[in-house]
Amino acid sequence: MKTIAITLGDPNGISPEITIKALNFLDLPKDKVILIASKNILDFYKEHLDLALEKNYDIVEIPYKKEFVTPGKETEEAGEFAFKALVKACELAVNKKIDAIVTAPVSKNAMKMAGHNYSGQTEIIEQYIAQSHQSAEMLFVCGSFSVLLLTRHTALKYVPEKIKKDFIIEKIEKVNTSLQLQMGIPSPKFAICALNPHAGEAGMFGDEEIKEIIPAVDKLRQEGINIEGPFPADALFAKCAEGACNYDCYIAMYHDQGLIPVKLLERNNCVNTTIGLDILRTSPAHGTAFDIAGKNIAHAGSMINAIELALK
Amino acid sequence: MKTIAITLGDPNGISPEITIKALNFLDLPKDKVILIASKNILDFYKEHLDLALEKNYDIVEIPYKKEFVTPGKETEEAGEFAFKALVKACELAVNKKIDAIVTAPVSKNAMKMAGHNYSGQTEIIEQYIAQSHQSAEMLFVCGSFSVLLLTRHTALKYVPEKIKKDFIIEKIEKVNTSLQLQMGIPSPKFAICALNPHAGEAGMFGDEEIKEIIPAVDKLRQEGINIEGPFPADALFAKCAEGACNYDCYIAMYHDQGLIPVKLLERNNCVNTTIGLDILRTSPAHGTAFDIAGKNIAHAGSMINAIELALK
Repeated sequence: MKTIAITLGDPNGISPEITIKALNFLDLPKDKVILIASKNILDFYKEHLDLALEKNYDIVEIPYKKEFVTPGKETEEAGEFAFKALVKACELAVNKKIDAIVTAPVSKNAMKMAGHNYSGQTEIIEQYIAQSHQSAEMLFVCGSFSVLLLTRHTALKYVPEKIKKDFIIEKIEKVNTSLQLQMGIPSPKFAICALNPHAGEAGMFGDEEIKEIIPAVDKLRQEGINIEGPFPADALFAKCAEGACNYDCYIAMYHDQGLIPVKLLERNNCVNTTIGLDILRTSPAHGTAFDIAGKNIAHAGSMINAIELALK
Repeated sequence: MKTIAITLGDPNGISPEITIKALNFLDLPKDKVILIASKNILDFYKEHLDLALEKNYDIVEIPYKKEFVTPGKETEEAGEFAFKALVKACELAVNKKIDAIVTAPVSKNAMKMAGHNYSGQTEIIEQYIAQSHQSAEMLFVCGSFSVLLLTRHTALKYVPEKIKKDFIIEKIEKVNTSLQLQMGIPSPKFAICALNPHAGEAGMFGDEEIKEIIPAVDKLRQEGINIEGPFPADALFAKCAEGACNYDCYIAMYHDQGLIPVKLLERNNCVNTTIGLDILRTSPAHGTAFDIAGKNIAHAGSMINAIELALK
């Protein structure tokens, strides 16, 4: 079992609540967890929700005033705290004090209010941890299968030009290694989505399948990687919905193609992971849920899965 | 109740089987149905599956040799039959003998083998029925909600340039009228998907929301159409999966964005409809299922829904 750092996320979201609930549920050995948090935030939730950590985990303190805990509100102070906690986790990772990072959800807007303009935690982690030859990849791990996004926060009009043979090969080689070494799947089985409707219908509606995706699949097979496709995405995920998720990892071409199935098939169990770096980062696949923050009604299932996956 | 024509679809798929099952289940008044079929095909399934029509519906005969019924095979003869049956239905529609068409599934490949190269039945119906000012739109009706595809069989790289303000307005005005007149929803409530991930995140990942979609929504609202969005598609459909399908009609920008949710949320109940023409056409949202043809194990649920919707 590895040693992990857990960041508390946005103090005003459900993040502290699900972190406390998940840790109490899992009851982990004390030396396996470093919590990057503020005692004031934990005290607030103890007083207001009668929700306290049942074990005395090590805390790396990021100072935060108790009066700044205002559940449901996006604030500059909360954004600053969330950002600092994440940067501290990256520091521990770079200094090899931990083996994995689990991040509770943050608010991009709150971080922006504090002057930190990133499209997500993945991009912050990439900036602070990635070595020059590395890049972060976003892999959603959902129970028995996972979904890799080949492109993430890319305007749809720029997606087709990114779908090139070498790009596909590089990303899939990387996720293949990560599934083997970080997720313990000896010989992962992949299915790749088509870019175009009906997989382009033999070139009638788009030729990226013929020119880029099929040649990439052929090359990956020659390398011994077990990959099938490209398949029309709607038919591929429909089979999965019928209980035939026959692949360890589905390769989606772009954000909505991968995230719609993730959220419709496994919305309560998915873990958002960052792979391709020296250490694994996991996070629940949901957000700060400001609308239900401070009410003690948030489910910790996805956070529990995120911690368990990081410890594997 | 209207008078409808039902085409038997591909003789070698599950199409005849689900048509017979659906008609027996629904037990409709004899004068409401015209079946465009071949007695030889019906006889084949009576002999081989012990499956026969329990009522003596009027049949418009499209000749077909019994020995050409070969369940599970894509053949030129079957493609020619399916095409002719559909064209006959269009003829009846143009001559105002019927009020709606229900089409059992066909094989595009089989029709192509017979020299009829279309991307689907929708396009054939459009060619044979649409008046000069009309165009066919593809609307999936799934129980309590429906999904319109703004673009259908379009290569993904050409989708963003099609998403223009006037194009969006025209299509939504058309579907609004169709939902009112053909589906009996007096004031339909619409949600429109964004084109880009996170709805473009205020222009960070694509500006079609700002330049085209939001202005279209504003204009449609001024016209009194009840429409909200653009919303990130994954979050919008996730709410629907949680039981909060709060809109009558979801507007998807492109094929996979609309069809992945349709197939994951309501795969057994969806009806593929063609709107925007003088008459409504409905069809099950699944294909010929050659792999289970001739086995008497196909479910007729989607075909039953298609017939019921056409009769409304």
